[in-house]
Amino acid sequence: LILNDTPFMRSLNQEFTVQFSYSVHFTNGLFKADNPLLTEVVGSDGSKGPRKILFVVDQIVLEKTPGLLEQITAYVEQNPAVFTLAAPPIVVPGGEACKNEMRLVDQLQESIHRYHIDRHSYVAAVGGGAVLDLVGFAAAIAHRGIRHIRIPTTVLAQNDSGVGVKNGVNNFNKKNFTGTFSPPFAVLNDFEFLRTLNDRDWRAGISEAIKVSLIKDAAFFRFIQDNAQKLRNREMAAMEELIYRCAEMHLQHIGGAGDPFEKGSSRPLDFGHWAAHTLEQLTDYSIRHGEAVAIGIALDSTYSYLAGMLTKAEWQEILELIRAVGFDLYVPELAQPGTEPDQPLAILKGLADFREHLGGELTIMLLERIGRGVEVHEMDVELITRAVRMLEAAQYTSAPQIRN
Amino acid sequence: LILNDTPFMRSLNQEFTVQFSYSVHFTNGLFKADNPLLTEVVGSDGSKGPRKILFVVDQIVLEKTPGLLEQITAYVEQNPAVFTLAAPPIVVPGGEACKNEMRLVDQLQESIHRYHIDRHSYVAAVGGGAVLDLVGFAAAIAHRGIRHIRIPTTVLAQNDSGVGVKNGVNNFNKKNFTGTFSPPFAVLNDFEFLRTLNDRDWRAGISEAIKVSLIKDAAFFRFIQDNAQKLRNREMAAMEELIYRCAEMHLQHIGGAGDPFEKGSSRPLDFGHWAAHTLEQLTDYSIRHGEAVAIGIALDSTYSYLAGMLTKAEWQEILELIRAVGFDLYVPELAQPGTEPDQPLAILKGLADFREHLGGELTIMLLERIGRGVEVHEMDVELITRAVRMLEAAQYTSAPQIRN
Repeated sequence: LILNDTPFMRSLNQEFTVQFSYSVHFTNGLFKADNPLLTEVVGSDGSKGPRKILFVVDQIVLEKTPGLLEQITAYVEQNPAVFTLAAPPIVVPGGEACKNEMRLVDQLQESIHRYHIDRHSYVAAVGGGAVLDLVGFAAAIAHRGIRHIRIPTTVLAQNDSGVGVKNGVNNFNKKNFTGTFSPPFAVLNDFEFLRTLNDRDWRAGISEAIKVSLIKDAAFFRFIQDNAQKLRNREMAAMEELIYRCAEMHLQHIGGAGDPFEKGSSRPLDFGHWAAHTLEQLTDYSIRHGEAVAIGIALDSTYSYLAGMLTKAEWQEILELIRAVGFDLYVPELAQPGTEPDQPLAILKGLADFREHLGGELTIMLLERIGRGVEVHEMDVELITRAVRMLEAAQYTSAPQIRN
Repeated sequence: LILNDTPFMRSLNQEFTVQFSYSVHFTNGLFKADNPLLTEVVGSDGSKGPRKILFVVDQIVLEKTPGLLEQITAYVEQNPAVFTLAAPPIVVPGGEACKNEMRLVDQLQESIHRYHIDRHSYVAAVGGGAVLDLVGFAAAIAHRGIRHIRIPTTVLAQNDSGVGVKNGVNNFNKKNFTGTFSPPFAVLNDFEFLRTLNDRDWRAGISEAIKVSLIKDAAFFRFIQDNAQKLRNREMAAMEELIYRCAEMHLQHIGGAGDPFEKGSSRPLDFGHWAAHTLEQLTDYSIRHGEAVAIGIALDSTYSYLAGMLTKAEWQEILELIRAVGFDLYVPELAQPGTEPDQPLAILKGLADFREHLGGELTIMLLERIGRGVEVHEMDVELITRAVRMLEAAQYTSAPQIRN
């Protein structure tokens, strides 16, 4: 063979697509002996079986569901041809604080190593969104990705975070700094777990449904309005419908908007979230993510109204619905002064963090009407400050005054 | 709205595809003032600029390339409209040992945090395959994926590991236990770096080219045979052609074989690697990855011959080429007794690790002729042991006896 003269530069282009698919199921009593769902989901993966499965359970869920570990163990053991427990279920602390513990990521990976979980085995997480994010991250980086089954136990995780493609933990005081985009193998929503929630957790997840209705679907907003009292009164049928429709819209957005791994700067599902993330930090996580999102939605809706984008009538409808479901519109940390010269309010750190996490141009979703979001690339600090003051007033005065 | 009765189960299916693309370039003198490549690659990302870029440099490369940090800095600073250094280049230890240090992952993430590197900024790694794997992993999990530019400096990284989609670090004494599939933004191969390699590192990367030729392309095998002396004599033109063709085949395999993220059990590019990974561990990384791969190829070729799959003539050609390029066929650790009852040889741990890392059914590539691999799902321990003994004999006897 004769070699050609090597030119100064040569280039190759690599292009390929990767197909992802997963199923999201809604059921009652997932681990009851006669519920075939989990067995069918795992059993249809095309391999011979039995597959190893490692369960990781949220301590908070376990405390409210005595016997859960035994129920999981019995369920798996009655289907020995389908799967086998790699080890007794592992219990991890629940709540957002667990995402601040990098050692938990190490410990979960150590378990995946010790119990010889391979890429055709399963790591199943039973818990709230924080535990799913934590376990999902550990599973995503072990062997470059173990099959991960999510079993969300809260409203928030069942209708929003648990059905998506993201995982992560907090690092350097930045929410979700460390994580990946890794679609789960399957999501199994068991409505029975919702009965064990206290009122705050029951309510908290509703804010994400309000959020998605506001930016995408006025009919869904009307549904939530019509069912606000039923939701507040913990009627299961209303909540099941809310979760199903919210999860469906969430999935449609991820799969249908052309950017499931968020390579661009647009993140419409983060409506209301720039302030919410910071409020969680400012309150030392004493308010729930969903409660913070409710305030964030109220803030950005008020801002939309003040900026002349949204009518007063629709703005008032939004605030009334948030209150009707039982959320606060304001906490004192919303008005906390900032420490940086360009941040008169502490929540403005959230805008800076957002710009950095997404990268590129700041892109924030606001509202032009109920059911229709619109993106902007800057926010006015004066208007934000006015919106904060209006929410403070609305929180501490009676409903008619919101109307004024 | 009237709610329907909630059925016992409802399901949603989520399906989407994600498109990935990146470019692989070959040049000389990447950081020379008049080389436009890096400026063009970053400048064509569609954003306004200047973009932040953080360089991470392999200590081993730096020692052999005095002035490299200054050259990088000058190059970036002469193009202020395109990019700006987020910080002075960071230097990390090189060589496989750096992948055993999880604290380096933490430190790199801390730098990404501290210098406010966002998802539209760049982390560029200059170094051997180990440093690229380490930095690539840190970049992949920060903000769920920072744009990563790989600048491989060794033959091995330029023709094989650096052009692929994998990153990772070692954990729990398992190679690449922790990592992700994350395509780079671009790969920039600068042949100038090859001049700084010692003979072992120059040679080591050739084994991956022999590997890919054996399983995919007899004509490429003939090219390597015809150029064996030139490669051994460090003639640049022969090496440049070898790297280009090997990288091209590697890319074609990843993009064209339908499984870029290795969801199945088939991994043809791991031909010869099950023994190689274990040999690296058994020798405490005193032999290079490429040297271990050369032995692994010799072992699996010999096994293929003993199993009746490969002709004696082709088997001999393979061993002769490996020797002609300058590789050993054997190190004493290849015959080291194992500690487990089912592992009479220590290298057999590599088969067990392989089975676990891939998951599912063990799938090993062997040869049916030069240029054509074939997959098997088990290997015979007796035949492996005989192959080891034959390599020992071949190593310590003259070439004609290999022929016998």
